[in-house]
Amino acid sequence: MRNLPIGVFDSGVGGLTVLAALQQQLPNESFIYLGDMARLPYGTKSPETIERYSLQICDYLIKRGIKMLVVACNTASALALPSLQAQRPHLPIIGVLQPGARAACATTRTGHIAVIATEATVNSQSYTHAIQLIQPEINVVSASCSLFVALAEEGWTNGHISAAITQEYLNPLLKDPIDTLVLGCTHFPVLSDTIKANISPHIKLVNSAIATAEEVSQSLEHHQLNTQNKISTVEFLVTDSPNRFIKTSKFFLPYTIDNHHVTLIDF
Amino acid sequence: MRNLPIGVFDSGVGGLTVLAALQQQLPNESFIYLGDMARLPYGTKSPETIERYSLQICDYLIKRGIKMLVVACNTASALALPSLQAQRPHLPIIGVLQPGARAACATTRTGHIAVIATEATVNSQSYTHAIQLIQPEINVVSASCSLFVALAEEGWTNGHISAAITQEYLNPLLKDPIDTLVLGCTHFPVLSDTIKANISPHIKLVNSAIATAEEVSQSLEHHQLNTQNKISTVEFLVTDSPNRFIKTSKFFLPYTIDNHHVTLIDF
Repeated sequence: MRNLPIGVFDSGVGGLTVLAALQQQLPNESFIYLGDMARLPYGTKSPETIERYSLQICDYLIKRGIKMLVVACNTASALALPSLQAQRPHLPIIGVLQPGARAACATTRTGHIAVIATEATVNSQSYTHAIQLIQPEINVVSASCSLFVALAEEGWTNGHISAAITQEYLNPLLKDPIDTLVLGCTHFPVLSDTIKANISPHIKLVNSAIATAEEVSQSLEHHQLNTQNKISTVEFLVTDSPNRFIKTSKFFLPYTIDNHHVTLIDF
Repeated sequence: MRNLPIGVFDSGVGGLTVLAALQQQLPNESFIYLGDMARLPYGTKSPETIERYSLQICDYLIKRGIKMLVVACNTASALALPSLQAQRPHLPIIGVLQPGARAACATTRTGHIAVIATEATVNSQSYTHAIQLIQPEINVVSASCSLFVALAEEGWTNGHISAAITQEYLNPLLKDPIDTLVLGCTHFPVLSDTIKANISPHIKLVNSAIATAEEVSQSLEHHQLNTQNKISTVEFLVTDSPNRFIKTSKFFLPYTIDNHHVTLIDF
């Protein structure tokens, strides 16, 4: 059991920022990454649909053999995690939202946190609830930044266009005395440099990918599930467009994915 | 039969620009519009997936009762139309691509046409083939403008951001002596003003929605399928997110959709 891979899923390529953080934190572990390219984006879909897709993917990965599941998508973490955990109680399942919320609470000094995410995540108010469950007195402001996803996938992460879009989305949030900004969508870390350049240097960014990798590490210890393997592997499964997946992955991963490691699957 | 509605489908809201043109051209006809919101966008999906989705929608609308089908999505027209027409030979099926190509050929004087579209449409080279089938000597240049879809759905159709993105995408095409620019994605007509403001006034835009409405009108005559009804109706079916559909539709339609006219369906 403990030598099985960890399952990681996202609607597409965004979760690769989480995979990269996991691989850095846990270099001996093996991973199966599933990108649901056929049905992306999740960020504009209804809660019921996101829950249905997530459970279907969870069961598919369980059949393939995994020891733990990481929901590497903020939208699915916000809308499907409680249901996944309730319906598959024997599998440890970790989302990116709670670790991000905890990291944000540990970071803020002023008690004012901003969260940027997809429309579905913002509408769910999941970050606000998760943060205020830890520290009820914290003030949370949020904004959906739909164009950031398209920018990241187009590879336009620098330059005047990404700067102008960043200002348009973030300026209203900066009216609040925030000192912490949560990147509440796995696509957004690739825009970190542009975001930093367009906000006050006193505001700290919280990348939930890194916070999640730390939580996964602790959970493996807790469940005594650390691998005993010396060689790690990574396998990629996509529900559509393997070529587009490989092409776009270069903006999200520090290495190039080999054609042979990507398999097209169908539910 | 002739009093049945015309079926119109798209992956989401973009096809509403085609519906609007159809309603203007054919004020007595009734329509059923299906927006496949659960599975949008089609523009980044593989040809096989787009073909499968399109056939499924076609059969669903046939069961509901339609006299004609309009594929109001350039990607589905490019990749699924021949297969739809071959597999459902008794239903007149019209896409937006051939009318757009014909209108472009009728417009150009220099013989240099540019096409802007989604990644899937551009990769399929369908516009180039359709144009050169009519006039082989025409030179066609094209560019995929993925961010235009996100811009249109965010309602950011004017201002410095849409201008900067337009210049980034179109400037390389303007090196060619083009005099005709085809809006090869149903989302793009809402950006017409910004596009016009950022290209030479000698370049004419081709909106395939209008060309398609003219072709549908001729086809109804040809098949003797014009309605005898005096009152027209329109019904909207969506596979997900009716609220988002209604909210975003305001950027694409000259009227507001009533809640009661939108039904959530599941395949």
